[in-house]
Amino acid sequence: MSKAAKRYGSVIKLNADKVAEYKALHASVWPAVLARLEKSNVRNYTIYYCAQLGLLFSHFEYIGEDFDGDMSAVGEDPVTKDWWKVCEPCQSPLNWEGPPPSEGGKGDWWQPMEEVFHDGHPASGYQ
Amino acid sequence: MSKAAKRYGSVIKLNADKVAEYKALHASVWPAVLARLEKSNVRNYTIYYCAQLGLLFSHFEYIGEDFDGDMSAVGEDPVTKDWWKVCEPCQSPLNWEGPPPSEGGKGDWWQPMEEVFHDGHPASGYQ
Repeated sequence: MSKAAKRYGSVIKLNADKVAEYKALHASVWPAVLARLEKSNVRNYTIYYCAQLGLLFSHFEYIGEDFDGDMSAVGEDPVTKDWWKVCEPCQSPLNWEGPPPSEGGKGDWWQPMEEVFHDGHPASGYQ
Repeated sequence: MSKAAKRYGSVIKLNADKVAEYKALHASVWPAVLARLEKSNVRNYTIYYCAQLGLLFSHFEYIGEDFDGDMSAVGEDPVTKDWWKVCEPCQSPLNWEGPPPSEGGKGDWWQPMEEVFHDGHPASGYQ
């Protein structure tokens, strides 16, 4: 890896009646979905859940050179679209209008956050 | 690094009147605070801020063998205690009673979150 990855953090609500379903889905994410993310240069993608606040928080690192292109490739992938169709009903985005991403809606389904601190020790490579 | 790091995610409220102060503090964290974290085997420590929700989210990776011991060493470090003294008034923990950590209070000042997903591509080393 020639340079440090760029980090992305984002947040979305997890619907209270979908917690078990969401956890089960994410305990065995479809291999083609993971493969598409890897091909799109996403690494160390982690999702945390805060039960008290009903929120999901994600962190990932991007090691490519064309973020918009790589993310478009994710969004255009038919298996990923099917994956989103089962995940979207579990979530309530903070700011969204219109059809969800699986139906072609554009925007930040997951709300981006601002990085206010990093310790200066980013990953230098990934498994 | 012989094995993958363990990831930790947590959340805390950032007081609305302290956003600028917190950001300024974290744009230039005291070197001794960073050094203590590094010595305590913390890596890739990232803090994100969601203005809409007034929340801070943190992600870090732990590469050591004695998490409790390493975290105690952080909490007993005099410079880190002074650092916490300036940071604590900026924050409102989700669940806390009694004196703050800088005054010896024990517990989760930052509320731990549950990891519900990882992509299988953790860091294999750090800068």
